[in-house]
Amino acid sequence: MSETTIPARILMGPGPSNVHARVYQALTSPTLGHMDPVYFKLMDETQVLLREVFQTKNALTLALPVTGMGAMETCLVNLVEPGDEVLVCVGGVFSGRMPEIAERYGAKVTKLTIPWGQPAQPAQIAEALKKQPAKLVALVHGETSTGVMQTGLPEIARICHDHGALLLVDTVASLGGTVFKADAWDIDAVYTGSQKCLSVPPGISPVTFGKRAEEKLAKRKTKVASWYMDLTLIRKYWNEERVYHHTGPVNMTYALLEGLKLIREEGLDARVARHAKAAKALHAGLEAMGLELFVKNPADRLPTLTTVLIPAGADDVKVRKTLLEQHSLEIGGGLGDLKGKGWRVGLMGEGAKPNHVLVFLSALGGILKAQGASGVKPGAGVEAAAAVLNG
Amino acid sequence: MSETTIPARILMGPGPSNVHARVYQALTSPTLGHMDPVYFKLMDETQVLLREVFQTKNALTLALPVTGMGAMETCLVNLVEPGDEVLVCVGGVFSGRMPEIAERYGAKVTKLTIPWGQPAQPAQIAEALKKQPAKLVALVHGETSTGVMQTGLPEIARICHDHGALLLVDTVASLGGTVFKADAWDIDAVYTGSQKCLSVPPGISPVTFGKRAEEKLAKRKTKVASWYMDLTLIRKYWNEERVYHHTGPVNMTYALLEGLKLIREEGLDARVARHAKAAKALHAGLEAMGLELFVKNPADRLPTLTTVLIPAGADDVKVRKTLLEQHSLEIGGGLGDLKGKGWRVGLMGEGAKPNHVLVFLSALGGILKAQGASGVKPGAGVEAAAAVLNG
Repeated sequence: MSETTIPARILMGPGPSNVHARVYQALTSPTLGHMDPVYFKLMDETQVLLREVFQTKNALTLALPVTGMGAMETCLVNLVEPGDEVLVCVGGVFSGRMPEIAERYGAKVTKLTIPWGQPAQPAQIAEALKKQPAKLVALVHGETSTGVMQTGLPEIARICHDHGALLLVDTVASLGGTVFKADAWDIDAVYTGSQKCLSVPPGISPVTFGKRAEEKLAKRKTKVASWYMDLTLIRKYWNEERVYHHTGPVNMTYALLEGLKLIREEGLDARVARHAKAAKALHAGLEAMGLELFVKNPADRLPTLTTVLIPAGADDVKVRKTLLEQHSLEIGGGLGDLKGKGWRVGLMGEGAKPNHVLVFLSALGGILKAQGASGVKPGAGVEAAAAVLNG
Repeated sequence: MSETTIPARILMGPGPSNVHARVYQALTSPTLGHMDPVYFKLMDETQVLLREVFQTKNALTLALPVTGMGAMETCLVNLVEPGDEVLVCVGGVFSGRMPEIAERYGAKVTKLTIPWGQPAQPAQIAEALKKQPAKLVALVHGETSTGVMQTGLPEIARICHDHGALLLVDTVASLGGTVFKADAWDIDAVYTGSQKCLSVPPGISPVTFGKRAEEKLAKRKTKVASWYMDLTLIRKYWNEERVYHHTGPVNMTYALLEGLKLIREEGLDARVARHAKAAKALHAGLEAMGLELFVKNPADRLPTLTTVLIPAGADDVKVRKTLLEQHSLEIGGGLGDLKGKGWRVGLMGEGAKPNHVLVFLSALGGILKAQGASGVKPGAGVEAAAAVLNG
């Protein structure tokens, strides 16, 4: 078998994002047994730092041995019993997967359809719950298929609780890159992935359950349908009982812990501000270049992932291929409604930095010019971004 | 947060096992996007080498983004529909988990209870299927709670097929360390973990489905209950369709691929012979030292994991603690029926080598002597093992 060289990429897609050298180093610390007291100590440290990044005191806070989609399913399978009414706000590909998963586990799902490019309005959720009460409301905080950030979460949580519903929030693309406060906003259950704003390789996924979610677990009439994802078993491995359930993904846990240490060192506020500034520069640059952002209302734009419309005269696949092959730079193609119409540009974790913004705008401008895309002013993009970054 | 030092361990528990330097190096290759053409190439290479280690031509051969227990659940959830009759041969903790999982997904499970320390007899399985036909028979090839290897798999497969049942085999603790031939033995579905005889860190799990298992998938009347574990979706990410399902655990895939390359370089036969010789030396050493092996029939002993009874006068926990703290050597405590009565000693992958056998016997002998365990001859153990290793 010939040797395949793995190139160093500038990762500006919807995730994974670039990984810090210290995280790579942690990843190759010697593998410990999953019941080793030193590994238990590292699990404890991971929980402490996960609570900081989720902004919570929740006891049930841990990292699941699955990727982000597995974390979505874990939350749904633990919070849903057959016959339960569930309301899902669907405005993109990822929120669109929630009904599919919940239904497989017997939920009666009502979809609140949100136009792509917009967040759900709290009033819509209130109305939907009035029409059809639900035990659980599920939505995505940062939808990577559209680049929309769901605003108004504290109000939405209040509405859910007033109607006796729990609120489950997907923060796969947002946690660690935007403001998110599980406790202050009173969110009942939250999950994320490792490979986006936490800048850790994919394969391990943090989750936190608050008191109401724990109560729901305790009062279930049926067993959690999945054994592997059963949080009543998984938490006994993470808490002081240390009951073996699965073999912890030891080296991935090292990497996650190191990524969380980097976040603590930077400070959550500083990190969020860094993402905001990089996104502002990117947006200014794209617009100055003559391109159109898909999300119209600036307040609804997810700083960690930007969707930009493909200009007339540009060849979607060719542009992305050239970025990858000539600049070793990855962006995402459009998903769902945006397939062939938009690009998805990530600024996540280690990647939310001036160098990424500038090199992307410079490269994209050059490629679009070469393709003769209409109305594109390559130089103006970099200039406008630099002005924001230096401002 | 204080810095926790991660010690280098001699891993002789039930897994994870020690990891080769080249696998650690591969683990820290730069993270690629999960839809990067270079990553797709690495996925293809992984499939080719997985087929070699499973000894199969099965198209549906890939690595799941879960640990070994997740692979067990993935196989069951794909092969079981609500109401299906399933026969499970239960003779240990891991086979004991299969009924629990299958039942959560609606299976009607018949347990064929096997005495701990023995494999199931083909005739028992035939009889059980005559009494109660089943669509699926599930069993564990190498049971890490007992150290028993299930022999007679070709005959068992024939019996299952004669009765119209599929055969699912767990090779988490055996694949890469013992003879196993999915195609020649006509096994329908097999899974394993990364962290045992493949000597890759935990968190990614190979699986292979043969034609009958694929047919069962195709003819399902109900959707696979789990979305995350749905092989009809996962395989579209691994085959030429490249439909995004989950974010591949990119760096863990690099590590798995490198571990598989090491196996190809060593040769599967040589590797199996190495495990057999190390186990033979360990068994000879333990018996010469005056200890008793739990599995009486040598032919039923799993070479990759040995269960040895704790001699009178020895303190289970203290022995293991001393091994860990003074020798940085991990062995496993007893599980289930063997709790407090036996130890589990792994010789897996990188660990199935003379140095591990000798250092363990030497350390154990010294500790047992210091504890005044009855009838233990420390020197004789190392001597007997050395004689086998040099033989």
